[in-house]
Amino acid sequence: MTNPSVVEATRGERIESAHCGAGAVVDADGRAVLAFGDAERAVYPRSAVKALQALPLIESGAADRLGLSDNEIALACASHSGGEAHVAAVRAMLAKAGYDEGALECGAHWPLGETEARALARLGRTPTALHNNCSGKHAGFVCVACAMGVDPKGYVAPDHAVQREAAAAIEAMTGARLSEEARGVDGCSIPTYAVPLLALARGFARLGTGQELPRERGRAVARIRAAVAAHPLTVAGRGRFDTELMSLTGARVFLKSGAEGVICAALPQVGLGLAVKADDGAGRAAQVMIAALICRFGGFDQEMEARLARFVSPRLMNWNGVEVGRLRPAGPLA
Amino acid sequence: MTNPSVVEATRGERIESAHCGAGAVVDADGRAVLAFGDAERAVYPRSAVKALQALPLIESGAADRLGLSDNEIALACASHSGGEAHVAAVRAMLAKAGYDEGALECGAHWPLGETEARALARLGRTPTALHNNCSGKHAGFVCVACAMGVDPKGYVAPDHAVQREAAAAIEAMTGARLSEEARGVDGCSIPTYAVPLLALARGFARLGTGQELPRERGRAVARIRAAVAAHPLTVAGRGRFDTELMSLTGARVFLKSGAEGVICAALPQVGLGLAVKADDGAGRAAQVMIAALICRFGGFDQEMEARLARFVSPRLMNWNGVEVGRLRPAGPLA
Repeated sequence: MTNPSVVEATRGERIESAHCGAGAVVDADGRAVLAFGDAERAVYPRSAVKALQALPLIESGAADRLGLSDNEIALACASHSGGEAHVAAVRAMLAKAGYDEGALECGAHWPLGETEARALARLGRTPTALHNNCSGKHAGFVCVACAMGVDPKGYVAPDHAVQREAAAAIEAMTGARLSEEARGVDGCSIPTYAVPLLALARGFARLGTGQELPRERGRAVARIRAAVAAHPLTVAGRGRFDTELMSLTGARVFLKSGAEGVICAALPQVGLGLAVKADDGAGRAAQVMIAALICRFGGFDQEMEARLARFVSPRLMNWNGVEVGRLRPAGPLA
Repeated sequence: MTNPSVVEATRGERIESAHCGAGAVVDADGRAVLAFGDAERAVYPRSAVKALQALPLIESGAADRLGLSDNEIALACASHSGGEAHVAAVRAMLAKAGYDEGALECGAHWPLGETEARALARLGRTPTALHNNCSGKHAGFVCVACAMGVDPKGYVAPDHAVQREAAAAIEAMTGARLSEEARGVDGCSIPTYAVPLLALARGFARLGTGQELPRERGRAVARIRAAVAAHPLTVAGRGRFDTELMSLTGARVFLKSGAEGVICAALPQVGLGLAVKADDGAGRAAQVMIAALICRFGGFDQEMEARLARFVSPRLMNWNGVEVGRLRPAGPLA
């Protein structure tokens, strides 16, 4: 568990805090271009694999049969900020399957986006399951159940047909076996299975390239990638890391953050998949880690590298707008 | 920088994340009862030393001359949630010195308490410097300037008389020298000086006991302790760690959290001071660390130890209220 220090937070002339972590950069054949820390350790990917869990939405025929838009496919891959547009789109997606928010089993929480949460409060309202950052993924599960002809009720359980399909997609894409021993319960109540970082990176290399995949799956990953690239605001929200970085790079980067400091990414143009985990679960550390790797392996020109700098080494500001420190890559990522 | 793993976050049967850290338990003479990790390393204590920075408020005569209440003294030691009561009290405190919120140099931010932030949004309002979690400390600085007969303007600068007094109090209490090289700028724009954990712990042992202190300072620390013990909701807010733990233990524990995973505490009855820092800056880790130490060294009976368990090993719940894991002390704290 003693991975190297990979991200530092400075204040003044000193290092105030530091994050240890592990990560891997892998091609679609599973060849590691870079691995640091214990990259063979299995970690819960949490929301970082929503795009893999969304494959049955395409492959079951649900997306075509229900006429889902690209925005709705992106929503199934989202940890959204709970803004009005997100909520309206989830509601519309459920309606296409003949359901409403009563079908959602994710639980309710205040919008992940602080601005969105305050906007809801300003209207004197309280959140529903539609505002849960995972509600798009859950709406996708309901759609898959419909396409499979099974009752969506109880779709969060590991042995429900929908979760078995989602787990099978992760297994096939990553090559990892998802055992019961490696299973935890996610924040939105679906199972999350621990997967080695190297396997996650390989899965994302395949997601990014379609290599090593059956033709139908190759089409499905391309459709998901295109949907997300076209709707970066849908998969997270204004000011959020995933949205901001993909808005900058377009289809050259596909990435998804998960809770507890996991981020997975694909660099389709260079055929690589990436996965990182901050030991301590800090999102800010995972962001710097993945940004450093994207910048190093993405094959970008100097101009784009310069524009990525604010993700690789973000400034830390105080409440008077004064820069008091920075985050920066360290150790194997320096 | 490689301190031991001291806090683990579990999910299902696995450790999902882990935090490294250091800490010290010291008596007023500076004898270490326990030290783990690099306890000699200097860390920015941030808001954890607000009670030390508040000593000039008593010792300058400001508190008596302006007729400050115990609640207002507690407010000067607070990282408050920005609720209506907090804001009203800061305004009243400034008024006693003949000033209003225009004198505050801390900057504005949305209330730290999520409930308090949404309550403000519900009123259609936006935050001012009064809502800054440090506004009570800053109001205290304004009061000190008045008592010293100096212009409060610019009181956040390291060379302003008020900051020199605050730094001198920290130096005298901890025995550490606060050099310019060890200085950073805090979130609220005042200087923060890196101090070794062992020295912070010693300072809090003195704060808790009055031992080794001149008589006047001994009276000042007792007054501050009594004010905080009487007003645990003032120093943080409903549902916050500092408030909840001190509400449970009363005057037997004095503690204060700072940003980036630092917490300092005093156990007056057993004559000990405590200081911890989570390497990665995680508040959740610092909370488990300090709770484990308080439980071990506080001299509590079994009933109180049982009631402290929810701080030592808090349950992690998902959005459906299902327990998905726990935080727990590890390594030298297990």
